[in-house]
Formats: sequence, structure tokens, C-alpha cells
Amino acid sequence: MGLGLIGASLGLAARERLGAQVSGFDSDPGAVDAALALGAIDSGAGPLAGAVAEAEAVFLAAPVGALPRLAGAVLELVGPGCVVSDVGSTKRSLCEAVSDPRFVGGHPLAGAESRGSAAARGDLFAGATWYLTPGPASSAATLAGVRALVEGLGALPAEIDAGTHDRLMASVSHLPHVFANVLVAQLAQLDGGGAVGPSFRDATRVAGANSELWSDIFLDNREAVDAAISEAITALRGVQELLASGDRDGLREFSERAAAARARISP
Amino acid sequence: MGLGLIGASLGLAARERLGAQVSGFDSDPGAVDAALALGAIDSGAGPLAGAVAEAEAVFLAAPVGALPRLAGAVLELVGPGCVVSDVGSTKRSLCEAVSDPRFVGGHPLAGAESRGSAAARGDLFAGATWYLTPGPASSAATLAGVRALVEGLGALPAEIDAGTHDRLMASVSHLPHVFANVLVAQLAQLDGGGAVGPSFRDATRVAGANSELWSDIFLDNREAVDAAISEAITALRGVQELLASGDRDGLREFSERAAAARARISP
Repeated sequence: MGLGLIGASLGLAARERLGAQVSGFDSDPGAVDAALALGAIDSGAGPLAGAVAEAEAVFLAAPVGALPRLAGAVLELVGPGCVVSDVGSTKRSLCEAVSDPRFVGGHPLAGAESRGSAAARGDLFAGATWYLTPGPASSAATLAGVRALVEGLGALPAEIDAGTHDRLMASVSHLPHVFANVLVAQLAQLDGGGAVGPSFRDATRVAGANSELWSDIFLDNREAVDAAISEAITALRGVQELLASGDRDGLREFSERAAAARARISP
Repeated sequence: MGLGLIGASLGLAARERLGAQVSGFDSDPGAVDAALALGAIDSGAGPLAGAVAEAEAVFLAAPVGALPRLAGAVLELVGPGCVVSDVGSTKRSLCEAVSDPRFVGGHPLAGAESRGSAAARGDLFAGATWYLTPGPASSAATLAGVRALVEGLGALPAEIDAGTHDRLMASVSHLPHVFANVLVAQLAQLDGGGAVGPSFRDATRVAGANSELWSDIFLDNREAVDAAISEAITALRGVQELLASGDRDGLREFSERAAAARARISP
């Protein structure tokens, strides 16, 4: 369900790696045609019922704001043996809204600043962490089924509580996205002519990407994003204090702590 | 003068592209040996006087804090036809301290999170912007000479006022570096296990790099860095207000402005 970058990549990977028969659905008929032409889906279903009626598994790859209603609609149509999951960037609100043994929330740490199926790749999930957030209602069989599919797509499933996931993502994904936007906005005000080094380009690669999707994500995770921003502001004020007092040792320690933290992140 | 990543790359590029005879100096004898083994220099000079006595051009590639004294020492030793420049990340304090017709400040937008000559490359400057900051005392002949050398190394020279350079760098280099450090520190506190996506890795590539060099840079440019951080905090508070009021349109505009600004940056 949903044939953008992630949905179409999922179709490609499911066909290539699992030999799956993939039926694709998108509210935009052009996206269905593009996914067919790309070989990401075997068939483009018309009405939702036709797309999911005989499905063994359904992945929801729509924008975060559309997921609760879409999950509800799909769960009304699929059989008792079907597993349903999603690929949304936030998990708590969805997993609170959807209470069904056949549903487990999910989020692959994969993507790109581009959007749409044109950038889709069958190996997009290869080696990527794919968070799974089972709720109290999720059955063990559903979790095992989704886990096996995710592994089959080449990803590394990792179970996590939905709230913990959202706080983690606020710090490692949503705050970096805010930072990227802030950096390019500040450069634009300076009118610096666009000569920037490689570190600036890397730091701002995602700036402004997919504004529609991201405003959804920010709002859906607003408490955790707000807390992550507040924590960042406290850290930034700390740097200003080190600067004001000319504290070379403190600045060096600020860098050394960062180096130690960076070294613990997979390369 | 100085045989770290930038100094050794400069030696390689000068030998490969300009056919120059390169004499290298470093206070660390190990760095001289490494640069000789790498082919970055033709000879490792002992005392400073020997290194620069007959030089046609001297590039200072020492940490920012050491540059004013080193520039003064070199300018006392070289002849009237020699040009002297540097590769430091900040320019205002150096260019205020060094008033000599034979000197023009410089800063190539090239580098890496690694340090030392082991990572040196003769093409490090190929296609990179190389800022030149002539002061009131710099002669036109010196500027022309340094400009020609920089072009010969494969870089794109760009003249800029030293203060403007430092304010620009505060926003496009020093603030991103602070942001990278803040991001990894926040992740470390969460103890998230290190599973992060590609955008986090890109955004924090430079985190904690070269703590000694960077504490110098931050302090040398403290006013502009402080101003850039204050501006960023204002922008971050603006995002918090959009979140608090659930302003989806405002968040979308925040992203769209960033997308427009990002599009103006060279890819």
C-alpha cells in the first residue's frame, strides 16, 4: 500500500528476494503505472479490497498521517492469517491506534532524500536495521511472520518499544533533519554564493526533503522532537559559555566526548 | 610548514602538478619522515631558516593558534620576492596580526575527518574553492602569485574579506561541526545501541574530529561562532513554536524554504 520510494523498493525486494507475488496500491494512478513499469509489482490493484483480499502480508507505505486510517481499513478486509505492518518513521501514535493481533508496527532505517519509485532499489534494505514495535495486542505469530519477511528482504529486524523508538528517532533522525534545515536557512541568509565544503554538503543532504512527509513526522512525534530540540539548545548554550570564557580545555573535552560517542556508532 | 593532512597534500599536489621542489618542515620529526616516505616533499628541512631561505613560496599549514607567530618568523627569513600564505580555517585574527606585502591569507575548502599525512592526496584541492583574503598591506604581486599557485594546484581561488570569510565559515563549517558534536552526544546519552540511518552518519561524519585543531578554530572565531549559534537557537525555538501550535503549514514552509536554499548549493 503506497508506491513511493519505500513501497516500490519493498515490491522490488519482495519479488527479487522472496519470489513473492506483489499487488500494489496507490491513490495516484501514475504511481501504480510507474511501479508496474519498474517491475516493483506484479499487478496494480484497483479498489483497496481487491488489493488485499487474498494477501498473506500487507505492508503500509503511506505517509505517517494516513497510516492509522489505512491500517484500520486494511485490517477489516484481510483474513485471519494475514500479517500487516507498516514502514512509518514514527510508531507510538500508530501502535496506540491500531490494536489487532495481525498488526505489528515497523520502520526500516533506509531511505533517501529523493522520493518516488524512480529511486527505488531492490537492495535498499540490505543490511539495514528494521525496527519492529509489537503492541500488547500483536500475536506472536504475526511478529514471527513479519520478522521472517523483513529478514527475507535482507534487513536486520530489531524489536523495540514504540515510545522508545520515537524518542530515539527524535534524536537520530528528526533532530538531524531540523539541524539540516536550520543550516541551509542560515547559509541562505548570508548569501554566501554557495561555496561550501564537503562536510556542509554531507550535513545538509536531507535538508528540505519531502516537506509533506516531514511535517507529518514532526507533528506526529512532536513531544519527543520538542524534547530533543530543548536538549540540543542546552548543549548549544553550553558551547557558548565555553566560548565566552575562552575555555580551551572545555572545548577540547566537548570534541573528545563527541569523538568517543561517534566511535561507538557503526561506520 | 606543517606536514599534516593539508600540508602533505599540498606537497604532493605541488610536486605532481607544478613540478615544484618542495622543502617540508614540521616540529614533529616523525611527520617529516612520513612526508618524505610518501613523496610529499623532496627534502625535510631541519631548522626553519634552512627550510625557507631560498623559497619562492611558503605555505603555512600549522594549527590556527600557531599561525601568527609562524608567519612572523617566516617573513623575517624569506626574501623580498617570496610569497607567503596559509591554509587556516579562520582568517581575521591572522590577517590583522600579519601586515606584510608578501603575505596573503588563504583557506582551501578541503579536508577530511582524518588527520595526518597518511590520508594526504595530491588531488585533495582539485575543484575546491580556495579563499584568499588579501589585507591592506598585501601587494598585488603577492596576490597574483598565490592565486596562480592555487590554480596550479587545481583549486578555484576566490577573494573574500577576512571578516566576511570568518562569518561565512561560522555558519557553513563551525556551526555544522558543533551540531555534529551535539548530535552524537545526544545519541550517546540515549544509549541507543548504535543503530542509526545513513542521514545520521552523514550529518555526524566530522563529529569530534581533531579536537585540538577545532578548539583553536572555535576560540579564534568565537564571536562569529557565538552569533551563528544564537541564530540557530532562535530558529530551533521557532520550530518548537510550530510544534506546540500544531502548525502543519508552518512546518511545511520551514521544509520548503530549506529545500529552496539547499537547491542553490552546489551538489
